[in-house]
Amino acid sequence: MSDASERSRAGATRARLFEAAARAFAEKGFHGTTTRDIATAAGMSPAALYVHHRSKEELLYLISRTGHESTLRLVREAAASSDDPVEALSRVVREFAVHHARENVRARVVNYELAALSPEHLAEIRGIRRAISREIRDLVERGTASGAFDTPDPRAAATALLSLGIDIARWYREEGDWTPEDVAERYVRIALRIVGAEH
Amino acid sequence: MSDASERSRAGATRARLFEAAARAFAEKGFHGTTTRDIATAAGMSPAALYVHHRSKEELLYLISRTGHESTLRLVREAAASSDDPVEALSRVVREFAVHHARENVRARVVNYELAALSPEHLAEIRGIRRAISREIRDLVERGTASGAFDTPDPRAAATALLSLGIDIARWYREEGDWTPEDVAERYVRIALRIVGAEH
Repeated sequence: MSDASERSRAGATRARLFEAAARAFAEKGFHGTTTRDIATAAGMSPAALYVHHRSKEELLYLISRTGHESTLRLVREAAASSDDPVEALSRVVREFAVHHARENVRARVVNYELAALSPEHLAEIRGIRRAISREIRDLVERGTASGAFDTPDPRAAATALLSLGIDIARWYREEGDWTPEDVAERYVRIALRIVGAEH
Repeated sequence: MSDASERSRAGATRARLFEAAARAFAEKGFHGTTTRDIATAAGMSPAALYVHHRSKEELLYLISRTGHESTLRLVREAAASSDDPVEALSRVVREFAVHHARENVRARVVNYELAALSPEHLAEIRGIRRAISREIRDLVERGTASGAFDTPDPRAAATALLSLGIDIARWYREEGDWTPEDVAERYVRIALRIVGAEH
């Protein structure tokens, strides 16, 4: 087998493992999930799992880091996508909402199992979370300074915007009336009201 | 010992048990918590715990039912507290926010461990949750019909209001800058913007 096909096989195994671990953590919580549960769901033996990952906590950390890094990238790119704060905020809220609706299983693990991370891993993830909050707060402050937004309390507005986005992962279900895009369109309108930019 | 003092001792034991169980579930999740963990934290033997409760699930159900019933009562009373929709909504949002900040440990269990309930218990709790949502939606619709609120989408507004309140339990920490009342005042202003009643 070539190196390339071996790497791609390893990548597929890794993706299957992440998916199985995220589902198990979302269903039974980190502490209620065994390494055996994850291995079985991913179609491998517990011994084979240990070849890839030293511990259950390492799997949680990797899921959490991947999730947080992709959210930070998404928010950064959306915030920088336009000089017009209304355009930029609409894009941030839209993409954040679609992501949290579509990836609700993984987003629940990422947001509700933080306490199960090791202190070092938790510190690293908290750093990424602070960077995400800062992007949103900076954008709200930029819009307020330019007069595009009108809010007496940019910090509270930013807290609410972030909170609304994250909590979508808790309540959103595929079988409900709204598609991820439906939620996103409604939340963009609500976000513009929160920052005082309705127009 | 008199009947009254025996009843009050049983009440105190029960309160201690609920508190220990809620803390354990919040920390390690329902599936990661053993009956022994709860008994130890409450200062009793596992055997003594079984005198009070048949199972760990029953404890979760009782915590969940008590929590949801008190939230429904709080929302109903606040919604009925004034004929003025702005006054009534301000009161609902204020009390909901204070409750979710102050009782954040219990509120996380109540909101994030629903999947661990038995199907019958889950159905009952879902009924109370629907009643809470309905109160908020009715209030938003009442305000919109009377012209006190101005929102193109009362359902999305109600979803956002409920979501903002519940998610406080995830992010609020006692050691942060804001008291529960600080969060509540900020969220009342944000709520009035969401429904288009800023004044």
